Amino acid sequence: MTALLESYAQDAWYRASDEGMPLADAATGETVARLSATGLDVPGMIDYGRRVGGPALRSLTFHQRAAILKSLAKHLTGSAAEFHALSHRTGATRRDNAVDVDGGIGTLFSYASKGARELPDDTVLPDGPAERLGRGGTFVGQHVYTSRPGVAVQINAFNFPVWGMLEKLAPAFLAGVPSIVKPASQTAYLTELVVRRIVESGLLPEGSLQLLAGGPAGLLDRLGPQDAVAFTGSAETGAKLRAHPAVVHNGVRLGIEADSLNCSVLGPDVAPDDPEFALFADQLVTEMTVKTGQKCTAIRRALVPEHLADAVVDAVGRRLEQVVVGDPADPGTTMGPLVGADQRTEVLKAVAALRGSAEAVLGDPERCTPAGADPQRGAFVAPVLLRAGKDAAEPHEVEAFGPVSTVIGYRGVREAVELAARGRGSLVGSVVTNDPGTAREMVLGLAPWHGRMLVLDRDDAEESTGHGSPLPVLVHGGPGRAGGGEELGGMRAVRHHMQRTAVQASPDMATAITGRWTTGARRRDDGVHPFRKSLAELRIGDTVASGPHTVTREDIDRFADLTGDTFYAHTDEEAAAANPLFGGIVAHGYLVVSLAAGLFVDPAPGPVLANFGVDDLRFATPVKAGDAIAVTLTAKRITPRINADYGEVRWDAVVENAEGQPVATYDVLTLVAKEQPES
Amino acid sequence: MTALLESYAQDAWYRASDEGMPLADAATGETVARLSATGLDVPGMIDYGRRVGGPALRSLTFHQRAAILKSLAKHLTGSAAEFHALSHRTGATRRDNAVDVDGGIGTLFSYASKGARELPDDTVLPDGPAERLGRGGTFVGQHVYTSRPGVAVQINAFNFPVWGMLEKLAPAFLAGVPSIVKPASQTAYLTELVVRRIVESGLLPEGSLQLLAGGPAGLLDRLGPQDAVAFTGSAETGAKLRAHPAVVHNGVRLGIEADSLNCSVLGPDVAPDDPEFALFADQLVTEMTVKTGQKCTAIRRALVPEHLADAVVDAVGRRLEQVVVGDPADPGTTMGPLVGADQRTEVLKAVAALRGSAEAVLGDPERCTPAGADPQRGAFVAPVLLRAGKDAAEPHEVEAFGPVSTVIGYRGVREAVELAARGRGSLVGSVVTNDPGTAREMVLGLAPWHGRMLVLDRDDAEESTGHGSPLPVLVHGGPGRAGGGEELGGMRAVRHHMQRTAVQASPDMATAITGRWTTGARRRDDGVHPFRKSLAELRIGDTVASGPHTVTREDIDRFADLTGDTFYAHTDEEAAAANPLFGGIVAHGYLVVSLAAGLFVDPAPGPVLANFGVDDLRFATPVKAGDAIAVTLTAKRITPRINADYGEVRWDAVVENAEGQPVATYDVLTLVAKEQPES
Repeated sequence: MTALLESYAQDAWYRASDEGMPLADAATGETVARLSATGLDVPGMIDYGRRVGGPALRSLTFHQRAAILKSLAKHLTGSAAEFHALSHRTGATRRDNAVDVDGGIGTLFSYASKGARELPDDTVLPDGPAERLGRGGTFVGQHVYTSRPGVAVQINAFNFPVWGMLEKLAPAFLAGVPSIVKPASQTAYLTELVVRRIVESGLLPEGSLQLLAGGPAGLLDRLGPQDAVAFTGSAETGAKLRAHPAVVHNGVRLGIEADSLNCSVLGPDVAPDDPEFALFADQLVTEMTVKTGQKCTAIRRALVPEHLADAVVDAVGRRLEQVVVGDPADPGTTMGPLVGADQRTEVLKAVAALRGSAEAVLGDPERCTPAGADPQRGAFVAPVLLRAGKDAAEPHEVEAFGPVSTVIGYRGVREAVELAARGRGSLVGSVVTNDPGTAREMVLGLAPWHGRMLVLDRDDAEESTGHGSPLPVLVHGGPGRAGGGEELGGMRAVRHHMQRTAVQASPDMATAITGRWTTGARRRDDGVHPFRKSLAELRIGDTVASGPHTVTREDIDRFADLTGDTFYAHTDEEAAAANPLFGGIVAHGYLVVSLAAGLFVDPAPGPVLANFGVDDLRFATPVKAGDAIAVTLTAKRITPRINADYGEVRWDAVVENAEGQPVATYDVLTLVAKEQPES
Repeated sequence: MTALLESYAQDAWYRASDEGMPLADAATGETVARLSATGLDVPGMIDYGRRVGGPALRSLTFHQRAAILKSLAKHLTGSAAEFHALSHRTGATRRDNAVDVDGGIGTLFSYASKGARELPDDTVLPDGPAERLGRGGTFVGQHVYTSRPGVAVQINAFNFPVWGMLEKLAPAFLAGVPSIVKPASQTAYLTELVVRRIVESGLLPEGSLQLLAGGPAGLLDRLGPQDAVAFTGSAETGAKLRAHPAVVHNGVRLGIEADSLNCSVLGPDVAPDDPEFALFADQLVTEMTVKTGQKCTAIRRALVPEHLADAVVDAVGRRLEQVVVGDPADPGTTMGPLVGADQRTEVLKAVAALRGSAEAVLGDPERCTPAGADPQRGAFVAPVLLRAGKDAAEPHEVEAFGPVSTVIGYRGVREAVELAARGRGSLVGSVVTNDPGTAREMVLGLAPWHGRMLVLDRDDAEESTGHGSPLPVLVHGGPGRAGGGEELGGMRAVRHHMQRTAVQASPDMATAITGRWTTGARRRDDGVHPFRKSLAELRIGDTVASGPHTVTREDIDRFADLTGDTFYAHTDEEAAAANPLFGGIVAHGYLVVSLAAGLFVDPAPGPVLANFGVDDLRFATPVKAGDAIAVTLTAKRITPRINADYGEVRWDAVVENAEGQPVATYDVLTLVAKEQPES
């Protein structure tokens, strides 16, 4: 008998006592593995995640978690060939593997690098700037994100057994929330293999990843307000989850990413000879055939100017002739079988329903002669293109989850938007146009109905990643029928796993809570210039106050002369006097901050290596000749880099005049050594 | 017979044909008004909002909407006295009116000013920076928010008939989404009066505000994926809404803000003589009595170090003796009646339930002798303080929506966090402590269970707005039992009314769609220096390229001498050579940007009035003596100010060396006149 898949629960592999159900090879029908979770202690997994996994993850900073993700991505890259081989049994071709396996590992890399770059080296994530809540500055508001002390239950679809798991795992992991992965049964063997390689790596903290290979019975019943469920699958199952008591009564957060009737719109500006016409047809065929159309993001509706519908069908037909359906393991195959016989039945049923109002103009799903494979044993179908009138209902309601799409003609941008909206919400839509005005009108009309929009034209075609590919840095999910959820989108997805809280406090307390110095908080001047301190010695709030320096007309003249910046407000007494904001010659803003640097910099070699930037510089009050300025520099945020012997220090800088008015406020960014240089 | 309230539907007042139900004065029991929506065309209202209100709002930019909100706030300020007078009939005292009426108008002012400051003068809102998606820079990702073309249905609670409406209306309005307001019946007469004054003002675009005064029958049934429901009320009704078919099947967005069992925690560091002890007791009494405890944010659980529980009860007792219960219209009254007899019955029932595991140690809700009012006719209750052991269940589950709170003792921060979490999610929690370490530990432990946390100490007490007051700039809402929704929080609430979409496009298309110049897009050099153009003439993409300028060692020396910035990397050949990043003397970063300004500035007087700031300055490559630098400045975003004869122009600045490497990238912020100055 073939192998029984195991679950990974409470940091041990669990093998069910019964035989389990057979999982069939998509192309041959042979049993690949068997699946059962009978006897698995699901409540124990949830409890273990909360009790062991969460605390283990939350004891790490965002940067430490990101470093683990990076190591994990490297580790899995070493097993990619093994994953590719097994993946063929799901019906995936070489091209499909690039999306699922390589795309999944790439998502880990992306989250690792973005996490290190965009999150602090801490466990709490500030959201936006501090808001002053009282005139005196003793009461401030600061939004923060904290990790939810629950579990992230991830219910994945069959079509992306690797990417589907990793794209949900990465943001949850970065957010400090342990995952319980529930793969779809059809392709669970590939997910199980990847989890084995992850577990073997020993990289993940205990309890941070568990695998439920088998039926999800009772999984949701024990969940509470700190737990989340992320579901990918049909709109129908999504609706059932929404009505589940755990969601309705227990405050479980539910994110749904459901199949949707995505559209691709050919712009009214495009003529058959334009590059955009070919791009439209190429993309449509790609989306019909990648993963054999088994993608939530595939193009189901091709909206084209009415007078071009025939030409589009012809162009698609010529391209479909080049598609090689067959054994997915054969490198020459461009489209494999569906995942299994059940899906084939579903697709044929959907095509029949679509034919209620649409005509099949290309292909016959019943007739398929795959190369190097047995059409009786494998779940092969041929690509099918239908054509419908604009009043047809089915193309906007029935999803054939296979290599099936429908061409619909439209007249005018407004009608295209209306037709697209009849899908009641989609994951992604394409607009193929070479006209910026059309792009703006169409995208702004379609955007409320979409989580992602691709504008395809001759300029971006070469680098375009295509309609159907979610990217780690871009939101994946859509409104309405598409589920209303959001996954990916860089750190946006990390935040979805956390709780946003508005903290009101004195500046000192806000500083203690956020690990970021807050205006109004105490400063510490211990007599040692902070530029003389290494990261090991420097503390938030360490400060140097320096000045005053009296700015002279000569300073301004010399600065204008040296830099060539002879803007009249700095050089022409009469013209400057007429300026409504200045009323006389003022110092260059760049002179003010340069003089401030002259005041706060400690010049001798030491731990401070470089000034690499300035943020949020605002000139609040003009500085005139005779004004005395002083500067206060305060360590605001300290961020050591994990793989370097230095880190970043963000300093709060305030330049004031003799009246105590701020003339310039900004953040100075420096690189500082972790230890004192050897002398 | 008293007046029948009217609904405002499709820009006309609608009067029901039947008598309606009587609404009673909280203090006297007299009928204030009658309420009925019989015969009201609710589907017509939804359709009108979508068809008329949405397009009218979306034809305005964010800044135009903000300006209308500001005018509206000013207009309503003129009617504040009238609102205050009617509000007394709801049981509200003078202090309560400050929260509901003045707080509501203040929320409009806040959204108006934040909207003008933080949103673009456009109808589409970019989210985050553009992401480069290909190495060549021809394919970029940009998230945008667009207005959802639906209606915002707002179901409000009885306790804040003014604030409750305006705090939901303001962000929806700014977001370009029309509102349908459904007030709670008990106090609908005050909401109706405010809507009358709004309608009379003529300030709002047609269809942007409708009022449903009466039963909500069928209101949700017609809603779809672009519509949203914001509900404030009980967790029980919230659960019903969650299971409504419109939400489960039609993709309606639902935001819930529900009563919660909020806690206030006295820190373990606080001694009875500390200011924080008195602050804790003061705040608890305030929260029990403001709005007679009828606030979703009121403190229901007072968690105190076990050994201080007696002292806390004593301190609260002394303060409760000062409370004057009576006629809400009497300026001497500090606590009015509950809103009505039904609520009084509910509160008494809840107190009885709490007594299952808690002891009433102060006050008796059954015995109340209001000053200047008839206890038989008005819904008066006395404040009640209970005390419970840490194992009691009811205090964490039963909410008495009146002047009722329970003191519970704890040992150690961890136990306090566990007790707080037993409320299963709250709108707000307070931590009263003078120790920053305790504040961080407690706030980070409690934050996942709260939408807002107040840290109260001697430093912020004077300016603190208090535990119970949501602020426009801070998120209001909480996880779990509190509903899981988010309202307010400044522009966060505006975004909740919009759809976030990831747009993938060429830089030119991204520029056209967002109205913001995107790196890689075409630049326009028409031979006129862009500093010579007024806002009326300047276009996104207008550019000036200038240089090269060869930086000399003399430039660096002179700059160091002039500014006093003698950091060794600019002055000491040997030390600079040892710097791991530079390997030799480099120009000051400030010198580079100053020279760049010298290159791009057009010095003569003209439309450009001032440089008021710099954003996101990064020094990418060191500049050494002999390096030639050139700068390109491109108009990125143009933002006219509504009430000034100038506006802001954000310029993209790139300084490159002779090899074409970027040495500095930043945004320059300038003020530019709308028209050419008269010469």
